[in-house]
Amino acid sequence: MSNQAATAQNLSFVLEGVHQVKFEDRPIPEIKDPHDVLVNVRFTGICGSDVHYWEHGSIGQFVVKEPMVLGHESSGVISKVGSAVTTLKVGDRVAMEPGIPCRRCEPCKGGKYNLCENMAFAATPPYDGTLAKYYVLPEDFCYKVPESISLEEAAVMEPLGVAVHIVRQAEVSPGQSVVIFGAGPVGLLCCAVARAFGAARVIAVDIQPGRLSFAKKYAATATFEPSKVSPSENAARLIEENDLGPGADAVIDASGAEPSVHTGIHVLRSGGTYVQGGMGRSEITFPIMAACTKELNVRGSFRYGSGDYKLAVGLVASGKVNVKELITSTVAFENAEQAFKEVKVGKGVKTLIAGIEA
Amino acid sequence: MSNQAATAQNLSFVLEGVHQVKFEDRPIPEIKDPHDVLVNVRFTGICGSDVHYWEHGSIGQFVVKEPMVLGHESSGVISKVGSAVTTLKVGDRVAMEPGIPCRRCEPCKGGKYNLCENMAFAATPPYDGTLAKYYVLPEDFCYKVPESISLEEAAVMEPLGVAVHIVRQAEVSPGQSVVIFGAGPVGLLCCAVARAFGAARVIAVDIQPGRLSFAKKYAATATFEPSKVSPSENAARLIEENDLGPGADAVIDASGAEPSVHTGIHVLRSGGTYVQGGMGRSEITFPIMAACTKELNVRGSFRYGSGDYKLAVGLVASGKVNVKELITSTVAFENAEQAFKEVKVGKGVKTLIAGIEA
Amino acid sequence: MSNQAATAQNLSFVLEGVHQVKFEDRPIPEIKDPHDVLVNVRFTGICGSDVHYWEHGSIGQFVVKEPMVLGHESSGVISKVGSAVTTLKVGDRVAMEPGIPCRRCEPCKGGKYNLCENMAFAATPPYDGTLAKYYVLPEDFCYKVPESISLEEAAVMEPLGVAVHIVRQAEVSPGQSVVIFGAGPVGLLCCAVARAFGAARVIAVDIQPGRLSFAKKYAATATFEPSKVSPSENAARLIEENDLGPGADAVIDASGAEPSVHTGIHVLRSGGTYVQGGMGRSEITFPIMAACTKELNVRGSFRYGSGDYKLAVGLVASGKVNVKELITSTVAFENAEQAFKEVKVGKGVKTLIAGIEA
Amino acid sequence: MSNQAATAQNLSFVLEGVHQVKFEDRPIPEIKDPHDVLVNVRFTGICGSDVHYWEHGSIGQFVVKEPMVLGHESSGVISKVGSAVTTLKVGDRVAMEPGIPCRRCEPCKGGKYNLCENMAFAATPPYDGTLAKYYVLPEDFCYKVPESISLEEAAVMEPLGVAVHIVRQAEVSPGQSVVIFGAGPVGLLCCAVARAFGAARVIAVDIQPGRLSFAKKYAATATFEPSKVSPSENAARLIEENDLGPGADAVIDASGAEPSVHTGIHVLRSGGTYVQGGMGRSEITFPIMAACTKELNVRGSFRYGSGDYKLAVGLVASGKVNVKELITSTVAFENAEQAFKEVKVGKGVKTLIAGIEA
Repeated sequence: MSNQAATAQNLSFVLEGVHQVKFEDRPIPEIKDPHDVLVNVRFTGICGSDVHYWEHGSIGQFVVKEPMVLGHESSGVISKVGSAVTTLKVGDRVAMEPGIPCRRCEPCKGGKYNLCENMAFAATPPYDGTLAKYYVLPEDFCYKVPESISLEEAAVMEPLGVAVHIVRQAEVSPGQSVVIFGAGPVGLLCCAVARAFGAARVIAVDIQPGRLSFAKKYAATATFEPSKVSPSENAARLIEENDLGPGADAVIDASGAEPSVHTGIHVLRSGGTYVQGGMGRSEITFPIMAACTKELNVRGSFRYGSGDYKLAVGLVASGKVNVKELITSTVAFENAEQAFKEVKVGKGVKTLIAGIEA
Repeated sequence: MSNQAATAQNLSFVLEGVHQVKFEDRPIPEIKDPHDVLVNVRFTGICGSDVHYWEHGSIGQFVVKEPMVLGHESSGVISKVGSAVTTLKVGDRVAMEPGIPCRRCEPCKGGKYNLCENMAFAATPPYDGTLAKYYVLPEDFCYKVPESISLEEAAVMEPLGVAVHIVRQAEVSPGQSVVIFGAGPVGLLCCAVARAFGAARVIAVDIQPGRLSFAKKYAATATFEPSKVSPSENAARLIEENDLGPGADAVIDASGAEPSVHTGIHVLRSGGTYVQGGMGRSEITFPIMAACTKELNVRGSFRYGSGDYKLAVGLVASGKVNVKELITSTVAFENAEQAFKEVKVGKGVKTLIAGIEA
Repeated sequence: MSNQAATAQNLSFVLEGVHQVKFEDRPIPEIKDPHDVLVNVRFTGICGSDVHYWEHGSIGQFVVKEPMVLGHESSGVISKVGSAVTTLKVGDRVAMEPGIPCRRCEPCKGGKYNLCENMAFAATPPYDGTLAKYYVLPEDFCYKVPESISLEEAAVMEPLGVAVHIVRQAEVSPGQSVVIFGAGPVGLLCCAVARAFGAARVIAVDIQPGRLSFAKKYAATATFEPSKVSPSENAARLIEENDLGPGADAVIDASGAEPSVHTGIHVLRSGGTYVQGGMGRSEITFPIMAACTKELNVRGSFRYGSGDYKLAVGLVASGKVNVKELITSTVAFENAEQAFKEVKVGKGVKTLIAGIEA
Repeated sequence: MSNQAATAQNLSFVLEGVHQVKFEDRPIPEIKDPHDVLVNVRFTGICGSDVHYWEHGSIGQFVVKEPMVLGHESSGVISKVGSAVTTLKVGDRVAMEPGIPCRRCEPCKGGKYNLCENMAFAATPPYDGTLAKYYVLPEDFCYKVPESISLEEAAVMEPLGVAVHIVRQAEVSPGQSVVIFGAGPVGLLCCAVARAFGAARVIAVDIQPGRLSFAKKYAATATFEPSKVSPSENAARLIEENDLGPGADAVIDASGAEPSVHTGIHVLRSGGTYVQGGMGRSEITFPIMAACTKELNVRGSFRYGSGDYKLAVGLVASGKVNVKELITSTVAFENAEQAFKEVKVGKGVKTLIAGIEA
């Protein structure tokens, strides 16, 4: 395998079917648009959606019909630049934003390119992902990182971008109280980002005490482990224990679990904001009258958009958010599938796959 | 009874228990705060919540424990003014906003007095309603109406205020497409207000063809009668028939029905806004992943707040909204219970009870 | 000349220097980007900025150094489409948005493409304008107009887009009072758009009574001719005559004149919004303490951006804004310079130049 | 004098005319509204506006016609509570918000009570200030401070509230660059608040190097001393030295000086926000075309409103803002005039007057 990596021009980690993966040597992608750059991918994190494709071959309407390169949480080094590129040069170290919008539809021109009608997103069928030696991106979707940020950390900008987008959707502002359900990678990063946004109290909620301990040490100001009582009762206890008065200012669900959604709605004050950040069942029961009479703002959050990656890099560069603590293991490219297995069983927080250095 | 009205000082229509009502002569309320005025109530509309108290003795947590005067959609004539009143004088004709906030809590000072933690709302236990000869209100909750607006119309400012608040929550702006579920009084008024806000297309949805015909004639630009298919299929047909492209900009539910909520979520474009205006079951199944990945804004709307009543009066005064067409009958004060029966069976659109002229 | 138009392939009206114009036959521009279309330009309005280049050879930092085709307010007919074009076909009648952003800078991706750092705007040096037989634009900058809108009217979408952007910057909402300074084409269109946005009172201000008469007939609900007194005194009289209570909700300056700016600031209520839409001297005296203590929002408005042209077309299609009344003359292409002379002396409201039909 | 303080019931520091002050024993004010509390005032800061009344007897339209107690930046201890008070008790230590709105006008109900049409503000004619032994306030305008905050610090909540309001008007958000003109007490506090709001770069500008040194040590990330060149040239150098690319995201002027305003406008990126926080001449020359074509948001900021004091206390309690460093001297109540003299000559940063302990 190491030999394969050494001799191959663009070794890629390809999903062919459920649990069927292989390494394939593909041609090095060409720069077609003069604003594009070629990146030598160096680290790639694995997230739940990658694992979902690996296990099920699809997510909702997105079905893997042709062999598809996996991976979308990547960092790398600029290997070649198009003729119109002005802000990057060969050798620059970058975080790679993996979804390229059309730039022409109404959402794109209206400042919501994450809602682009023609998005080409890495490792979302039919688009290949970043688990390859090389990947082509437009210049403006590569974010140069300063010396103080390692390429490992740069790969974590992707989930951090997700968290930044969620916290922005929640309109978290200084002094607020924020309750975050789910202490996995995104939930943890939401805790850190909410504090960077000035939240006075950030309460992490999870059913696993070990994850709550980590959250407390990492970024939460308090934690809450739900009891086996109704969501209303858990909400009441959460409010009381944390002295939240009329309720929390904002709730972020990074769990996708129905009881979290209910508890979240009940824990909010009138006029508060709820953001659905985690993916779960497509339909759940929902306390709609509480949302109505408390005049809540209930919002979705989908990927990341204008300014999110840039802020993610800034938060790490300034020391306001620590992503290093979340990286619990790194496996060699040839052991890529091992990373999927670790994530599946919930081992560690964030597992990276090392790329093939050019 | 007419004699009773003539001789009584402040005849009031009182709910004592489920379906138990009586007329009672109560003392004329006193002006205690120098900013208050005494209003001779002249017309009162009846809405679903009044009927709910009459039929069930409670709405959610609000339980009628002591005899309570009913009614909250009223107009009247100023009968007496407090010493600090500067903008109203005896004889002025006014629309009466029936919920008095504390003016001191955070929502009140933050511009959201409809979310006041200490609201005193007419005909919501333990506060008496407006179905009496006299009612006391602060000066700033009485809205003088011009000569062109009748006192009958002035009573309809209350549901119109509800509709204004809903349409503002929906952030309807010129050129947009708005789909409104439920063609009862509030749904119809939402149609009219959405057009006054510049919506290019206002599509009324209801399961009763008669209500759709009225809606079309009244203010909707198109109508839609759902078929017995899935919400997704109804949504797809609604979009196609109305050429809504990626979906509607805004959806207002004034029905409270679960299928409407589902269809509404599916009919929205990415980034669109959904407002829950109608009351229904406290929990329903909800397509939360569609709301999440389309990054919808799902909002409640509760009563009316800053500027809503003022705008309601302005919309009628300028002819942009017609409320006269909605008034389908007026009963005498002595027949007040008749109005509750008519509303219960859905007779007409808006039934008024005439008050006792001072 | 007619012969010249007949035999030329792409006759263009070119500015060579101050008051030096000529007709030149240029090559028909090629479609290079597959999303581009070739438009046969049919009508072009002339505005103050065109005249300014013609008279002075520059506007601020923009200096005409090479011969430049003039014109940017145009409509036309699709003559050819690129291979990726899906929404337009040959023969479609379109309004042409004349500024093409880079789609890659932060303002572009953040929903403010009018602030693009690399904008290519027609007839702004070094970019050629639209006063030619043919012009190439991206598909998404051509707005198909319905049969009910003539090509003459379609050319007026450009100043209407300016007005839509200004009124949006002013955040005009239903029921508000808006005072608009300057009753030239843009000021008049702002009056019409403000009413379409639901403004209850739209007061046009100008020093020429003839323009005020037109404004009143066209779209203003009232007019005001300033006296030779201080701005504060004019503001006080304007407020009193129009019963504006604590002041106007919004002010739009479409005049660029210092006395208008001062009167506008003084006429606003606390918390009101002032938008500078008209161009004038680069520095003026400004009542900054009034703006500060009344906590005004003072905003610039520059060209048009996301959704403005689309809404402009919608407002005309729905009959909410009439642009026909503003077209006071149309000259033949061979008399193009005549149009500049008419605009310079303020003859009529909007003068169009007919293009050369393909 | 100490004897006077000991024997007097409510010794007050009264301005009678320009530079004419006296100590006067006034009756202890009564609690008339059941929501009011009586506060024993313990520390009072002196600001420029106090000094202005002392020196000139007026500020703009506000003229001292009757003897008026001075002072409005105060803290104290609750001495008595009205019958309806629920959140405070005798002995509680509080920061005192000194402007009481009417709670009934449109700005009050719309969430902008700082723009109240009937504001009663301490030490603004005709309302007495807080430089007395006792002062009456409504419960909701007293903010309990935790043990960790001294009463000296609690007095500084007033200018901190001003700074919070300014930074909120500037819509400072995480990662942004903010340039703050004027490194006096309010400018310094704006630096600290902007950082607490997540600003990545906070650049203090002043013409006094000593103040810049303090700003750098206190809260600014960089400083800038303008040269004797044009505002455009200073802006260009500021941008270059701080690598601000297309310009700063936000500018706050806490100086009131014309050159600052000009430099501030030129230093902003397109679409940036400028807030006028400092008071100066009522009219200045202003680069309005730059503001227009860059589509800036230029806003005033006036006092503080909904949530500002609460956040001020929270920022100090959490250690995000340090106000202790700004308190450079404290004088005894009997030497009150000395504090005015110190502030006038710019001695120290913030001078407090100790009150008379009950």
